[in-house]
Amino acid sequence: MKINQNYKNLKASYLFSDIAKKTAAYKAQNPDADIIRLGIGDVTLPLCSAVVDAFHKAADEMGVKESFKGYGPEQGYGFLKDAIKDYYKAEDGVTLEADEIFISDGAKSDLGNILDIFAKDNTVLVPDPVYPVYVDTNIMDGRNIVYMNGTAKNNFLPMPDDSVDADLIYLCSPNNPTGAAYNHEQLKAWVDYATKKGAIILFDAAYESFVISKELVRSIYEIEGARNCAIEFCSFSKIAGFTGTRCGWTVVPMELEADGMSLNKMWLRRQTTKFNGVSYPVQLAAAAVFTPEGRAQIAENLAYYRENAKIITAALDELGIWYTGGVNSPYIWLKCPNGMGSWEFFDLLLTKANVVGTPGAGFGAMGEGFFRLTAFGDRERTREATERIKKLFK
Amino acid sequence: MKINQNYKNLKASYLFSDIAKKTAAYKAQNPDADIIRLGIGDVTLPLCSAVVDAFHKAADEMGVKESFKGYGPEQGYGFLKDAIKDYYKAEDGVTLEADEIFISDGAKSDLGNILDIFAKDNTVLVPDPVYPVYVDTNIMDGRNIVYMNGTAKNNFLPMPDDSVDADLIYLCSPNNPTGAAYNHEQLKAWVDYATKKGAIILFDAAYESFVISKELVRSIYEIEGARNCAIEFCSFSKIAGFTGTRCGWTVVPMELEADGMSLNKMWLRRQTTKFNGVSYPVQLAAAAVFTPEGRAQIAENLAYYRENAKIITAALDELGIWYTGGVNSPYIWLKCPNGMGSWEFFDLLLTKANVVGTPGAGFGAMGEGFFRLTAFGDRERTREATERIKKLFK
Repeated sequence: MKINQNYKNLKASYLFSDIAKKTAAYKAQNPDADIIRLGIGDVTLPLCSAVVDAFHKAADEMGVKESFKGYGPEQGYGFLKDAIKDYYKAEDGVTLEADEIFISDGAKSDLGNILDIFAKDNTVLVPDPVYPVYVDTNIMDGRNIVYMNGTAKNNFLPMPDDSVDADLIYLCSPNNPTGAAYNHEQLKAWVDYATKKGAIILFDAAYESFVISKELVRSIYEIEGARNCAIEFCSFSKIAGFTGTRCGWTVVPMELEADGMSLNKMWLRRQTTKFNGVSYPVQLAAAAVFTPEGRAQIAENLAYYRENAKIITAALDELGIWYTGGVNSPYIWLKCPNGMGSWEFFDLLLTKANVVGTPGAGFGAMGEGFFRLTAFGDRERTREATERIKKLFK
Repeated sequence: MKINQNYKNLKASYLFSDIAKKTAAYKAQNPDADIIRLGIGDVTLPLCSAVVDAFHKAADEMGVKESFKGYGPEQGYGFLKDAIKDYYKAEDGVTLEADEIFISDGAKSDLGNILDIFAKDNTVLVPDPVYPVYVDTNIMDGRNIVYMNGTAKNNFLPMPDDSVDADLIYLCSPNNPTGAAYNHEQLKAWVDYATKKGAIILFDAAYESFVISKELVRSIYEIEGARNCAIEFCSFSKIAGFTGTRCGWTVVPMELEADGMSLNKMWLRRQTTKFNGVSYPVQLAAAAVFTPEGRAQIAENLAYYRENAKIITAALDELGIWYTGGVNSPYIWLKCPNGMGSWEFFDLLLTKANVVGTPGAGFGAMGEGFFRLTAFGDRERTREATERIKKLFK
């Protein structure tokens, strides 16, 4: 038996374990320190009551022979696909067919698994800094990876370069980790570039629910031509706090074709062969997000996180610290003050303010000198953290 | 962009859609026909109350900030891995480490995804008849597939042939679709063969909970040497009716190594990169299967299906029809009477007895002339179906 040799090329990532180790070591030496964590991209507000109620309803249904559900459709129940279709129509003015929507256990799974339908000798274009999953999943397949640099100069929104050839293009907007978000015009340039190159854009829209500015885009399909060159990934994780509940979806337009094969049909075949659908109670819970009560409750949660972001960005504005994100994103990506390196700033923040964030260098070479804070924390703790940061840098 | 050309080699499977079409056409012409379906491998009894209670508990926890769960470990919560560890110890006398157990959304996902860690130029050995997923997932990767024939002569339990080289070996015991199950001695021969060839056995134990005969095996790790050559896949689907609830697990022993790489660590890397763990409510519900109440309730459900199987096999015994399965399996795999072909027998059963089963030819060339019935139906309907079959062939 021979192993997949590409796994030998994977680099171990110690980002979050290094953060945990440094924090634990500091806490051991300073047991009274009141440490505030604004590092990890996980939500903290509980599931809203409409979702919890749906879970209870589903559990009861599953306990009775007449309403029990066995195997469901691998690509998801119609009731949830229809709810998502309506969400796109209402929020983005985007019309999708139900058969273009595939329900999954989360965007991370689909972002990895979608690569099954593409050849190994495609060239992949990824931003730096980057969500590590885009890179590692392609290293596992041995694909050639080309980077496009995010910098303060381009506001961490790299634009297409005609001299670079690419077959698969990863765009995440609003971005993890930088919080930066493309506007219509910028994404149109990406769609035009992909069309010219015959490339596919893998559009990660996991943070779309944070977009409030009109000129920005929530779905790539708001852009003319995107149905011919883009696959979109989305998730209930950040919309509705499903990080531990697990549900997402992927949109593969019927127009996508290559070499006489429909990408939609290829993905359908992949999913019916290697997946058996999402848990029925989880799908019923996810559908509850789109009911009127669900929508109202979710809006409250999103407003809570947005207010946290506002508290953080207001402090950075006051201190004159450069940043992206925060307005249309739960992430705030700041330039470490006084030319500090990412880890230097981490250590300073930990030891002098007892605040934990994420060093930008952990997301790629271009992240060096930058730092990520998240708005997913508790309100009072977020406020307290920013007060400490203000005190430190004033 | 180039697609994965191997997808062009996939054959469309029309087995279950052809069955549905033929059944619908008959029903259209005979609207009063009372059709009994003993075809599909899905369960019909609802989730037991211990599982439903756990779902309710989890939903409540998720609705409160203090007990809310965000991202969990990709490889599953410790409480569930420990419960599975104890299950192996108690049922099979098998000792596993918690880190050897990976929780997933079902055996089908893991059976497909595990191939990520193996090279494409391995030769794969699969039985015929076969669960189509083993074949299609390897066609998608372009691997060379070699078949081993199940026949009435070997009781549909093909044994290793030293003259055949293989790198990955699929064994499913008790088998889908044939219901046949290997004993200790037979599986020892497979472990010895795999050891000699340096091959990995992919052991699908999805139906292990139906095994009652002492000489048979529930886990491949009951066999000496298996920890050095086997990965085991299992699922709550048939143990506890989780076909629509979705939870399973995979065991990758620490001993498995090739080319200086630990397969356990490779699979961990695959799962942490392309998966984000199973829904917390689903994991809590799955753990409830192993509580004393859960165990007792599940035992009742399994006894119900076993009694259905007994009703079917008693009728076949009476008619002198040859079959495998039924005793240690929910599937009964019978030789079509009077030398009939699989579809010929299907048509006869549909039109003369109004009973729907699954033509064996749908599972591979060696299935021609055979037919699958399942014990997952309703008791009274199963009884009625066998009465009709008896009347037809007496």
